[in-house]
Amino acid sequence: MNVAETIAEARAAVGEARAAGRNVGLVPTMGALHEGHYSLIEASKAACGFTAVSIFVNPTQFGASEDLDGYPRPLEADLAGCEARGVDLAFAPSAAEMYPRPPLTKVMVEQLPDTLCGRSRPGHFAGVCTVVAKLLNIVRPDQVFFGQKDFQQSVIVRRMAADLNFGAEIVVCPTVREADGLAMSSRNAYLTPEQRNQAPALHASLKLADRLLHEGKTASEAIAAVRERLAEHAPDGEIDYVQIVDPETLEDVQKPGGPVVAALAVQLGRARLIDNLRVELGRAEA
Amino acid sequence: MNVAETIAEARAAVGEARAAGRNVGLVPTMGALHEGHYSLIEASKAACGFTAVSIFVNPTQFGASEDLDGYPRPLEADLAGCEARGVDLAFAPSAAEMYPRPPLTKVMVEQLPDTLCGRSRPGHFAGVCTVVAKLLNIVRPDQVFFGQKDFQQSVIVRRMAADLNFGAEIVVCPTVREADGLAMSSRNAYLTPEQRNQAPALHASLKLADRLLHEGKTASEAIAAVRERLAEHAPDGEIDYVQIVDPETLEDVQKPGGPVVAALAVQLGRARLIDNLRVELGRAEA
Repeated sequence: MNVAETIAEARAAVGEARAAGRNVGLVPTMGALHEGHYSLIEASKAACGFTAVSIFVNPTQFGASEDLDGYPRPLEADLAGCEARGVDLAFAPSAAEMYPRPPLTKVMVEQLPDTLCGRSRPGHFAGVCTVVAKLLNIVRPDQVFFGQKDFQQSVIVRRMAADLNFGAEIVVCPTVREADGLAMSSRNAYLTPEQRNQAPALHASLKLADRLLHEGKTASEAIAAVRERLAEHAPDGEIDYVQIVDPETLEDVQKPGGPVVAALAVQLGRARLIDNLRVELGRAEA
Repeated sequence: MNVAETIAEARAAVGEARAAGRNVGLVPTMGALHEGHYSLIEASKAACGFTAVSIFVNPTQFGASEDLDGYPRPLEADLAGCEARGVDLAFAPSAAEMYPRPPLTKVMVEQLPDTLCGRSRPGHFAGVCTVVAKLLNIVRPDQVFFGQKDFQQSVIVRRMAADLNFGAEIVVCPTVREADGLAMSSRNAYLTPEQRNQAPALHASLKLADRLLHEGKTASEAIAAVRERLAEHAPDGEIDYVQIVDPETLEDVQKPGGPVVAALAVQLGRARLIDNLRVELGRAEA
């Protein structure tokens, strides 16, 4: 496995692979890799002859009060994990390599960040889009792999890549969960044992919403039931949002007439946890 | 010469050239080609094995009160001109091809657009950066050629390309002028004969600034002299700005201690004319 700390090294490694006729998959991560990330790596390896994983805790997507400094950075373990999974290139640049001077350029998507996580994390998705644009330009992948857990991110990045003609396909892979349903996340490490016991309520409440919507309940009714379930089973959690939205526009849907996404964010101790579930409702008949 | 109206055609043509080992130059234009554009094409042909010219009047860089509808679009003549100069690919997409749905994504550079032309053209440079980002992703050139006449644009695009790691080199070529000094511009066609007679005063006044700065005058003194000269020789012109700025930061410079750029914009009838001159002052001795 090639480990690149500089953009030039990463470009050279990808360039060699391309010259050898291999197509290129990119898995962008902030490190602290878990089975969710490894499933993205598996998907890339299944589809592409060369898999690059970027490991970069991007400062520009963290708010001033967020967990940039405390975010876990177990680089040695991450590199060992990548090596074990057959990653071809691990690109782990420093912040100074990615931002050699104060960046003046921002890639921003309008509208789509005005809901869900974007509402309480102003500037977050501009930071994400900007660093993803940089990574796309450095690696020039054929396919890029994101997790469904970061649902809003995947919708926004896909729109950004299409609007700017990046030419890379954005592939969204299923959320990987612990046995009790908790979505895997690097931030789960922040949970105390008591909070960890409460955390599965997020997924359980989304499954409740799925059932209620299939039974014909409105979004408001489903959301109220989710909030009630969370209050009961995750009493230490502070709900940021519970929403039922259109999978493309992210607009709130009141009476679903087709697939929707039930999504929520809960602050549980130090961890801001997010999760979502695509609810496969059939389209209403004409 | 290959003429592509779709992004897919353009990508295919460039891909073939690249597979044949040719490096790729891009000359982005809004058409209505003149000798200024052709000098960029010459520069590209001298440096690159394959030269692409894009011809696209980008609606997102025009303000509501600007000349989008009236902007000249002599496509046949432009294509003939490209063919005659040995261009390999003319990429002339429709607005619907470039913006198949309302674009939500913007590439914005901060600070640098807050002066010079950006001050009276809000959103202009975001439109420019966004369409240039699209063109860079479609063509993936090794070098991109811009004219010094659009000085602020070249500084902003260079910063954008560096910040986002586009990997293309931004090459800035000298302004091409009519015999009487008027900078070539597609908008010169808007001038009445009387306005055309006054227009050379722009370049003449910049040369005056150059002389005065070399004589040790301050920026304020030089600017006052430029304004006086314009009032006298281009009495129908409405001055938008006259500024002496740093070539990199675009900040106003009062007592130049190194190279500066004298820049101005004048509305002359229907035409908003811009021009600038790099003033090669030596650095002040320590």
